[in-house]
Amino acid sequence: MNTPVVRVGIIGAGNVGAALVGLLLDNSRVDALIDAAGSRIELVAVAVSDTTKSRPGIPTELLSYDARALAERSDIDLVVELAGGVEQTRPLLEAALRRGASVITANKALMAEAGTELAAVAHANGADLFYEGAVAGGIPIIRALRTSLAGERIDRVMGIVNGTTNFILSKMSSEGSDYDTVLAEAQALGLAEKDPTADVEGFDAAAKVSILSSLAFGTAMAGGAIAREGITKISALDVSFAARNGYIIKLLGITERIGHSGISQRVHPAMVPLGHPLASVHGALNAVFVEGATIGPLMWLGQGAGGAPTAAAVLGDVVAAARNRVSGQCDVPFSVDTLLHMIPSGELQSAFYITLDVIDRPGVLASVASIFGEHDVSIESMEQARLGDEAHLTFTTHLALESDITATLEDLAQLDVVDAIGSCIRLIGADA
Amino acid sequence: MNTPVVRVGIIGAGNVGAALVGLLLDNSRVDALIDAAGSRIELVAVAVSDTTKSRPGIPTELLSYDARALAERSDIDLVVELAGGVEQTRPLLEAALRRGASVITANKALMAEAGTELAAVAHANGADLFYEGAVAGGIPIIRALRTSLAGERIDRVMGIVNGTTNFILSKMSSEGSDYDTVLAEAQALGLAEKDPTADVEGFDAAAKVSILSSLAFGTAMAGGAIAREGITKISALDVSFAARNGYIIKLLGITERIGHSGISQRVHPAMVPLGHPLASVHGALNAVFVEGATIGPLMWLGQGAGGAPTAAAVLGDVVAAARNRVSGQCDVPFSVDTLLHMIPSGELQSAFYITLDVIDRPGVLASVASIFGEHDVSIESMEQARLGDEAHLTFTTHLALESDITATLEDLAQLDVVDAIGSCIRLIGADA
Repeated sequence: MNTPVVRVGIIGAGNVGAALVGLLLDNSRVDALIDAAGSRIELVAVAVSDTTKSRPGIPTELLSYDARALAERSDIDLVVELAGGVEQTRPLLEAALRRGASVITANKALMAEAGTELAAVAHANGADLFYEGAVAGGIPIIRALRTSLAGERIDRVMGIVNGTTNFILSKMSSEGSDYDTVLAEAQALGLAEKDPTADVEGFDAAAKVSILSSLAFGTAMAGGAIAREGITKISALDVSFAARNGYIIKLLGITERIGHSGISQRVHPAMVPLGHPLASVHGALNAVFVEGATIGPLMWLGQGAGGAPTAAAVLGDVVAAARNRVSGQCDVPFSVDTLLHMIPSGELQSAFYITLDVIDRPGVLASVASIFGEHDVSIESMEQARLGDEAHLTFTTHLALESDITATLEDLAQLDVVDAIGSCIRLIGADA
Repeated sequence: MNTPVVRVGIIGAGNVGAALVGLLLDNSRVDALIDAAGSRIELVAVAVSDTTKSRPGIPTELLSYDARALAERSDIDLVVELAGGVEQTRPLLEAALRRGASVITANKALMAEAGTELAAVAHANGADLFYEGAVAGGIPIIRALRTSLAGERIDRVMGIVNGTTNFILSKMSSEGSDYDTVLAEAQALGLAEKDPTADVEGFDAAAKVSILSSLAFGTAMAGGAIAREGITKISALDVSFAARNGYIIKLLGITERIGHSGISQRVHPAMVPLGHPLASVHGALNAVFVEGATIGPLMWLGQGAGGAPTAAAVLGDVVAAARNRVSGQCDVPFSVDTLLHMIPSGELQSAFYITLDVIDRPGVLASVASIFGEHDVSIESMEQARLGDEAHLTFTTHLALESDITATLEDLAQLDVVDAIGSCIRLIGADA
C-alpha cells in the first residue's frame, strides 16, 4: 500500500521552528509519525527572514526567504507559522487558508486578535486552523477543550499561563525577596525580557485568556480588551501575609460563566489557598484549571514555553492536520455564541486583601472602618503593624462587589490620615 | 439543512449509566451537543438486568432487559457499555462491533483483559472503540495520548489512578493514623468496598496501567500480568519517615521505556518528593504524569471516579464517535508494537527505604550492614530508634538493582538478630 504524503512548509525558524524541523527530520521518529498521521509528513520548505544567520540542522535546499511565496505554494498542504507578528503575518495565513491549505500556528497575539476571523476563513475553505502551541506551550489544552470536553458545560477556566510571572512570584514566595530583585534575576536567566511589560503587566496572559474563553464558551476572541492587572505592585509584605494565612499569590488568567449568558474574562494576581491544585504550580510551569458542571475540577500542568515543548505541541497539530488531510476531513468549525455578553469587573464579587499606610493616631481605624462600612464592604480580619508614627493596616474582606471596593479605595485615598493605599488583591475561595 | 441523527443504546444504568442518561436527556444541552457532535444524539434504549429496581429519570419506554438484543439492534449506531464484567460482556461488545456499531465502554477490567482483541474487531469492521471512562474517571488522558501526544516519544507514565488508595494514604499522611483505622473510615464513607482487595492490593491500578501502557507505547494489554504491590503494609511510621524527609507515600501505577525496546509496567507504593507535582494530589483525586522526550513533564489531575465525572468522560467519547459516524470516519486504529519486551522488575534500579526490627545489642548493625554490602547495596542513610531491648532500623539506599534488594531482604530475614523485616518502599528521584 502506498503511504500518502502530506507536505509541510514552516514560516519562522527561531527556537520553536528549529525544534520542529529537528523533530520532522528525525529518522528515528519517521515510522511512529506515519502510524500517527496515516501519512508520511514531508518537510518541503522553511521560510526565514534573516538571510545572514547560519541555520544548523536545516538543509540549505529547504531554506527560503519568501514567506509569502511559501504560504502560496500550491504543493504545500500544511503551513506552520512560527514567526510571530500580527499585521504582517495575518495576510500570509489568510492566503494559505484561501487556497485550502491547513494552517498551524503558535501565535497567541495573532489568534487573540484575529482568531475568530481566521477560523471563519479556514471553515469556508475546508481547511483546519490549529493553534495548540499558542496557549501554555506543551500543555494540550486546546485539543482537549475542542474534543474531550466538547460535550461538557464548562463553568470556569483559571490558568497560570505565563511562566515568567509564575517564576517571579514563586521565587518571591520561596525566598521572601522583593519584586525588583527577582525580576532582575529572571532577566539575568533569560526568563524575562529586558522590557518585561508584556509578561508582568498581564498582556501575554490576556491573549491566552481570550483564546481559552473562545474554546470554553464560544466567545469571540477579544484581542487586548480584557480587564488586566499585573504583578509589579506585589510586595514582599503581601507575599508574607499570603504565606502566614495559607495562601500563595499567583497571576491568574480567568474566564468564567456568570449566570446564564454572562462571561467574565480577566487577568489579575490572586491569593490562592494552598490546598488548591493551582497553588502547587511552581517556577516557570504553566497550568490550566477547568471547572465543569459534570466532570468537576480538572487541571493540566506542564511546560508553558520553550522551543522543544512548544514544538511538540505544534507537532501534535501537524499530525492531526495531516490525518484530516488524508481522510478529506476538517475538525468541527469554531462556533461563536453571539448571545453571550461580557460582565464588567465592577459587577463581580470577590473577597479582597487590602493594605493601607496610615498615620498612627487614635481614631484612625474608626475613620477607615467607617468608609468600608459606607460602601457595604464587610471586614473579615484586620492586622495593624506600627512603624514609627505610621501604621501598616492589612484588611481582608468578606465577599464584596468590585465596584464597592473601587469606591472604598477612592474614598480612603481622600482621607488625610491615609498616606498610601498599598495592595488590593483578590482572594480565591478554598472551594474554587 | 437536516441534522443527522446518531442513535445510542446504553447497557447498564448504575451510577455512571444513570448520569449519562441524565446528560443525554437534558434539554438545555441539546444545542451544544448538536454543535459538538455535528448530529443529534438520540438515546433509544437502556438495557438493565434488574427488572424490579425503580429507575427514576429513565423513561420506561427506553428500558430493555435484554442487553444482547440491544447490542445487536441494527438501528443503534453507538453501543455504550457501563455494566461491567468481563466474560459475559465481551461477546456483547464483539457482536456490536461486528455489525459495525461503534462501542464506548468505561470497563477497565474488560479493556485490560481483551482491549487489544476488541480494538482489532473494531478496526476490521470500520467501527470506533473508545474507553475514556476506563482510566482515571473524568480525566481525558486516553484521547490526549491518542491525539495530542501521537507524535511525541513518551518515556514514562506515572499515575495516581486509584482514588480509594489515594484517599487512604492522604488521610494517613495528614492525620498520622494507621492503615486499618483509615481503611475503616473509607469503608464507612463508601470510598472503599467491604472487600477492598481490588483497590488496596493494586489490581484496579494494574488494569489502568495496562491500558495507559498500550496507548503510550503500543504494548498489548496485559490483563493482570503486571508486577504489583499494594498499600496494606504501609505503617504510620513509614508515613512519618516520609514527612520528616520531604516525601509523601503514594500508590503509583507506572509504565516506562527502558532502553530501546524494553518496557516496565508495575504498581507499587513509592516515596514521592514533596516538590513533585504528584505529591500534591490529595484525597480521592487522580492524576497522570507523563514524561515526553520533547514535550517534557505533563500532568493531568481530576476526579478519578464517581458517576458524574465518569459519565462526562463517556459523553466526550459519545460526541467523538457520533462525529466520526456522521463523517464516515474512524479514529486511527490501535497499533501494537510487537518488538517491545517486558523488563522484569528485578532488573530495574531504584533507591529504597527499608525498615527492620532487630534485637538491640552490640554488633547487630555491623551484621546487618555487611549483608547490604554483600549484595552491592550501598546505604545512603540510617536511623536507629530504641524500643526496650529492640531497635527499629530505618535505611535508605542509593540506587540498587531490585534483585539485589530482594536478595538482601532474604538474607536479612535469616539473621537471628532480625525479628522482622518491616517496610520496603521505592524512592522516586526528585528529577523524576
